Amino acid sequence: MPPEQTTVAIVGAGPAGLLLARLLHNAGVDCVVLESRDRAYVERRQRAGILEQATVDALRAAGAGERLDREGIPHDGIELRFGGRSHRVDFPSLAGGRRVMVYAQTEVVKDLIALQLADGGPLLFDTEVREVTGADTERPVVRYVHEGRERSLSCSYVVGCDGFHGVVKQAIPEAVRSTYERVYPYSWLGALAEAPPVYDELIYAHSSRGFALASMRSPTVSRLYLQVPNGTDPAEWPDERIWDELDARFALDAEPGWKLERGPVTAKSVLPMRSHVTEPMRHGRVLLAGDAAHIVPPTGAKGLNLAAADVIVLARALAEWHSTGSTERLDAYSDTCLRRVWRAEHFSYFMTTTLHADPAQSAFDTRLQLAQLERVATSPHAAAELAENYTGLPIRS
Amino acid sequence: MPPEQTTVAIVGAGPAGLLLARLLHNAGVDCVVLESRDRAYVERRQRAGILEQATVDALRAAGAGERLDREGIPHDGIELRFGGRSHRVDFPSLAGGRRVMVYAQTEVVKDLIALQLADGGPLLFDTEVREVTGADTERPVVRYVHEGRERSLSCSYVVGCDGFHGVVKQAIPEAVRSTYERVYPYSWLGALAEAPPVYDELIYAHSSRGFALASMRSPTVSRLYLQVPNGTDPAEWPDERIWDELDARFALDAEPGWKLERGPVTAKSVLPMRSHVTEPMRHGRVLLAGDAAHIVPPTGAKGLNLAAADVIVLARALAEWHSTGSTERLDAYSDTCLRRVWRAEHFSYFMTTTLHADPAQSAFDTRLQLAQLERVATSPHAAAELAENYTGLPIRS
Repeated sequence: MPPEQTTVAIVGAGPAGLLLARLLHNAGVDCVVLESRDRAYVERRQRAGILEQATVDALRAAGAGERLDREGIPHDGIELRFGGRSHRVDFPSLAGGRRVMVYAQTEVVKDLIALQLADGGPLLFDTEVREVTGADTERPVVRYVHEGRERSLSCSYVVGCDGFHGVVKQAIPEAVRSTYERVYPYSWLGALAEAPPVYDELIYAHSSRGFALASMRSPTVSRLYLQVPNGTDPAEWPDERIWDELDARFALDAEPGWKLERGPVTAKSVLPMRSHVTEPMRHGRVLLAGDAAHIVPPTGAKGLNLAAADVIVLARALAEWHSTGSTERLDAYSDTCLRRVWRAEHFSYFMTTTLHADPAQSAFDTRLQLAQLERVATSPHAAAELAENYTGLPIRS
Repeated sequence: MPPEQTTVAIVGAGPAGLLLARLLHNAGVDCVVLESRDRAYVERRQRAGILEQATVDALRAAGAGERLDREGIPHDGIELRFGGRSHRVDFPSLAGGRRVMVYAQTEVVKDLIALQLADGGPLLFDTEVREVTGADTERPVVRYVHEGRERSLSCSYVVGCDGFHGVVKQAIPEAVRSTYERVYPYSWLGALAEAPPVYDELIYAHSSRGFALASMRSPTVSRLYLQVPNGTDPAEWPDERIWDELDARFALDAEPGWKLERGPVTAKSVLPMRSHVTEPMRHGRVLLAGDAAHIVPPTGAKGLNLAAADVIVLARALAEWHSTGSTERLDAYSDTCLRRVWRAEHFSYFMTTTLHADPAQSAFDTRLQLAQLERVATSPHAAAELAENYTGLPIRS
């Protein structure tokens, strides 16, 4: 029988919901996690792969550091390519020793699920939440369907970690909810390939043909992205076309024959590029975290890290409330997170609009992009701005 | 009789042409300056008033430092107002001791004209240049009208310092000329007022009502700007409306009663906001400098300083050619200047789009502007980027 009562109901078993569950477990706060999909689906979703130091620290604190430390690949910088040249941005020297870790979101999710099933509170898959009510009461209620039966879960707090299309945010009345949004006039074609990574760090390329990004999932698997028009069908992109286009966009004047090592493309998908923020992130006893409250375009590698930062702040706030009865941190939760969210929204916008070719942009706009990239390549302050934002700002709560 | 031969023909007696004439005079290179307007008109044109250190140094080197050093007002920073708060950007601590000097372009022009008339080569007012021919020959020719008669001036080099609408750039064949342009969807209403400046440095205000800027010309004269729609007639803005709107845009949460001290507005004009670059800045024996080659929106205070940087580089190149016969620096002139020009174009675009309210912008875009301003207020690197660009980058040639 699924439980009818808990302290914290977490809707969504993505990285935000799962990490929150582990941090609450450590703090001795009961919770139940409800996930609409099955376990295999959740563990297979291809998403981000760049973890900031604070995210790595939180995963270690949650007990999920062992495989991450063994298999994660530390990155000390990124390479920018523009105007036929390359320039490396070195993170530790620019951002006070900070670096990032490459470890795919799929692996983070697998590790957290295994931990939660081993010793945590209930984690129910195939469990669709229909509605959250009573945000303004002492005991909100989550109505959900499990094994074909409608049930309800009464709790002290409900946390929506259920993504952009999640239902929890509907519990915040429209009259107090504001949304901010931007849809970009291009998408990413993401390709997973059985090919050794071209370079031991990420390469971000500005090109007149559009943006391209080369990253890795492991020493034998590359994760590659190409800017494509919105509405692109992945079927328009057979393997050879992807490789040819990557070679053209990564071209260097100094190495005319430079090419990526090719291999079979095992997955292709088109990702839209969107910025979105819902405010506030808390109303009464309903709280939002991660994609449920904010979406960033993936260019700044901020989505997963923002989700982790939200639940780190939230776990501290819920633990404080649980042990002392004080709601001071919970009351500050939305403002605390939104400062970081807007910083990340701006950085993601900056990276996106500096590197992509907007179909409507003029030759003047292209020159401005190149002037900005040239500045990053020549000014220590401009480079440090990029490095600090990329490796992540300290989490305050 | 006006001269029929010279070494360098300079078209235009704005700050670029006049400073070049003085620097060439110092280097012993003959030149003639041709200006279509009369002296009174040239000395009256209201333009910029913020001089970078390199511009001040060049004016001193040109002999025009005496009154500048006596009457110029050094500024060590600017104030940013946004979200009802104020934040000061301190230049010397952020940009290696650099500061700027407030000294109106009208005064720079008066000082340079007096010097040139006292001991320089010919400076002809009311002299309209019709055409420049022979850019690809050893002796280009400037055809002009002086005292009602058509004349021609043969020279080794022609320099177009004749502004955005100048005729010299027509001597560069269209086939080799590229232009890059952006027109902004707002203008500035500039007001000169007999009122003491509100603050001893410039105040740049971001407001939901639009941008505003408070600056000074002297301890008793304020120069004030308001963002207005393109096509605005200054007659729509009686004095009281200007002051009321300035008070609203500069409003501070912490000082609800804060108001500017009012005084008679003695001049009003509407300035369009445009970015423009013509490339290359040299073709054969024709060279462009200042507004003839590039326009920036005034938000970054870069127009006059870019013009000065151009002619500093050019005077060195012409002096080298004159004394050694080497054209190495002249050959590099366009590339040398354009690197700086594009940096300034980008900075001017950044300042303009961060501070103005685009009529088409979304609530998301406004939040991004505030996130950027907040970042300048909290990150030393972001603040230093602004300070370094504002106080001006070193001139390399």
